[in-house]
Amino acid sequence: MEAAGATSRDALGRAAGPPSGNGEESPPESRKVYMDYNATTPLEPEVIQAMTEAMWEAWGNPSSPYLAGRKARGLIQAARENLAKMIGGEPQDIIFTSGGTEANNLVIHSAVKHFHETHSLKGDAAERHSPAAGAAPHFITCTVEHDSVRLPLEHLVEEHVAEVTFVPVSKVNGRAEAEDILAAVRPSTCLVTVMLANNETGVIMPIAEISQRIKAENRRRAASGLPLVFLHTDAAQALGKRRVDVEDLGVDFLTIVGHKFYGPRIGALYVRGLGELIPLYPMLFGGGQERNFRPGTENTPMIAGLGKAAELVMENCEAYEAHMRGIRDYLEERLVAEFDGRIHLNSQFPGTERLPNTCNFSIRGPLLRGHLVLAQCRMLLASVGAACHSDHGDQPSPVLLSSGIPFGVAQNAIRLSVGRSTTRAEVDLVVQDLKQAVAWLEGQA
Amino acid sequence: MEAAGATSRDALGRAAGPPSGNGEESPPESRKVYMDYNATTPLEPEVIQAMTEAMWEAWGNPSSPYLAGRKARGLIQAARENLAKMIGGEPQDIIFTSGGTEANNLVIHSAVKHFHETHSLKGDAAERHSPAAGAAPHFITCTVEHDSVRLPLEHLVEEHVAEVTFVPVSKVNGRAEAEDILAAVRPSTCLVTVMLANNETGVIMPIAEISQRIKAENRRRAASGLPLVFLHTDAAQALGKRRVDVEDLGVDFLTIVGHKFYGPRIGALYVRGLGELIPLYPMLFGGGQERNFRPGTENTPMIAGLGKAAELVMENCEAYEAHMRGIRDYLEERLVAEFDGRIHLNSQFPGTERLPNTCNFSIRGPLLRGHLVLAQCRMLLASVGAACHSDHGDQPSPVLLSSGIPFGVAQNAIRLSVGRSTTRAEVDLVVQDLKQAVAWLEGQA
Repeated sequence: MEAAGATSRDALGRAAGPPSGNGEESPPESRKVYMDYNATTPLEPEVIQAMTEAMWEAWGNPSSPYLAGRKARGLIQAARENLAKMIGGEPQDIIFTSGGTEANNLVIHSAVKHFHETHSLKGDAAERHSPAAGAAPHFITCTVEHDSVRLPLEHLVEEHVAEVTFVPVSKVNGRAEAEDILAAVRPSTCLVTVMLANNETGVIMPIAEISQRIKAENRRRAASGLPLVFLHTDAAQALGKRRVDVEDLGVDFLTIVGHKFYGPRIGALYVRGLGELIPLYPMLFGGGQERNFRPGTENTPMIAGLGKAAELVMENCEAYEAHMRGIRDYLEERLVAEFDGRIHLNSQFPGTERLPNTCNFSIRGPLLRGHLVLAQCRMLLASVGAACHSDHGDQPSPVLLSSGIPFGVAQNAIRLSVGRSTTRAEVDLVVQDLKQAVAWLEGQA
Repeated sequence: MEAAGATSRDALGRAAGPPSGNGEESPPESRKVYMDYNATTPLEPEVIQAMTEAMWEAWGNPSSPYLAGRKARGLIQAARENLAKMIGGEPQDIIFTSGGTEANNLVIHSAVKHFHETHSLKGDAAERHSPAAGAAPHFITCTVEHDSVRLPLEHLVEEHVAEVTFVPVSKVNGRAEAEDILAAVRPSTCLVTVMLANNETGVIMPIAEISQRIKAENRRRAASGLPLVFLHTDAAQALGKRRVDVEDLGVDFLTIVGHKFYGPRIGALYVRGLGELIPLYPMLFGGGQERNFRPGTENTPMIAGLGKAAELVMENCEAYEAHMRGIRDYLEERLVAEFDGRIHLNSQFPGTERLPNTCNFSIRGPLLRGHLVLAQCRMLLASVGAACHSDHGDQPSPVLLSSGIPFGVAQNAIRLSVGRSTTRAEVDLVVQDLKQAVAWLEGQA
């Protein structure tokens, strides 16, 4: 099935119709099949169109009072509305950032600042009354987060600025369980940050359940003067692949990353009741843009592109999801059929929801480490884990190890992630490609 | 004279030839003349082309090991080299940022961290030996900096994290004088940050002289175990308008802002001997990009566009400068001729170099506040000061007041800034436009 709204792309995953023209069929030996859509996605043609138009027509400074500025402001506002609609939030609760890394760092930075403002200012009334006084702010996260959450938290620990509990995910189902998250809460806990979907396994974390438990906990804490626990989720991998709704999830902060849903390389941060219900302390200071929460002259074309990408997700998400699920399931069927008893599907956990596009698997065998198999593939473009770890290819993924995948299996892991336009024919090519790579590696021994 | 490399633009300053077609002449009454190139510039067509190509062809994750990733990495490296060449630096000393605001904030953040690492860690050997021990880091800047320098410094003061001396610029020549900057140095001084050219007056600050004096000071400080004083300049307004060379300037840090030189809305930071000679402490933590100094998946198309804009500056800067200077000088001649004894040129200081494109002037008269005159202009698009202050139009510019412009004159100030393709005919239109606006305002009284 071809998803509604999906556009035809060549085997590199490129959208059809670049201005330079690229209609020729690649010769078979150079044909590539891109199955690394969790690393990044191409831009939808409509997104490129929106960005190009903005570059030509809306280059004015959005702060300028005259027409050129108003035009840019209009595009930015329309994009903000589309982002809000995509996640079921309010436009005024969205601020644009340079990407997911900045959004995640900003949430963590803000939580530290807020904790100090409300609970540990020396000589402040809060200190005398708050049972959390004198403590460092405490964060709870899980062991399979992206580096843009894990590393800023580790940095705060190194600097003795915060304490962090890394809650192990379940080795049975790959999830950060609400029970375990809540058990880690302390009087000084200020933020729980758990991703919505894991980038390597595709496992969906029980954010709504965590939120309900935190809300109950917060009612008790409010009564005893303890700081409220805020909830953040990095939705980078979930957006565009399944419905994401901030009301259903019950989160206070949600990270949006354009280039994971066929949009540009910027991001946004949702903050529930930004500046009213939930405070946000800026990391940057400057010209007042984004109501001072994130100053810097707005990147109008990128923002316009992000808005268009969000609009496409709003309109087509169910179709995208159904298409990707169909293709991914077919891929897994074919892998199981071709590699029979030798395959281990690392992302199928009993009773756990997962992204519709992600297939993490290992082919057992002493010579079949994931990066070696991929290196022998002639067509398949994929990875063994997060792209930003591509230089550590011979180490098994810590995410898989945390999720209970045995060391020897994790060493052989390959992550395939399909996209809006991946076809069954491409799946067949990839499975054949893997077969020849495995045969070659085993024939060398 | 038309500058080599300058492309024809319509009266809104748009580059000719958007894909949607825009060849028609605007009717005279709706014709606009953009003279706010210090607020932002349009993108050069070659820059849009480079960005569009990158969007279609180089969308791979630059961290991915396969071809799509290598292609993106190649574009990023080429852009880094072009930026380095533009400023006479080394490619490995350039890191990309989301813009000038981030670059300026990053330098200030880094200086605080470095000071603490080297001079005030409790129980550390440095503390026992450093005469600066126990003090907060001290910054020196001037009173006419952009908000993206002033506000992060003021924030550090509010948080009791740093001390800052705001050195007044000379009321005679608008410059931050080396003598005054050096007189403010204390044992705890860690950074001097002075812009290369002011955005409102166009005044060029004596950075090379400040650098020489700081180098001499640093030799003395090294002998007595004092922290070295680093020098940062925000070159946002100077790049593309005059030659900028980090060796001649002798700076340790230099901020680059694409959208001020016909490039995209991202920026870069030059750091001399990045990580070896001069340390840089990141504000963000994540996937390791930009050698961990600035993580986050690289914005390949924007970076490619920034590289192209830098290449154009490298090739054409002298021609751009000569063209803009000719037009600006003609503009000032015409203003003086038309408004005779009533005009005050706020950006002409005796013996002071200034940007070739900036003309800040006031037409004297009780009814002629700058924002009122601009509001009556039918064609002219310009501003009374920094774009990010456009909502404070009825307050005289603090930059002009600092620079010795009398209050009554500063209230009437208008900043015109011309671009690569501004013509004498446009200057004539603008002067007529201003005349009718003034006549209308005075006729209303």
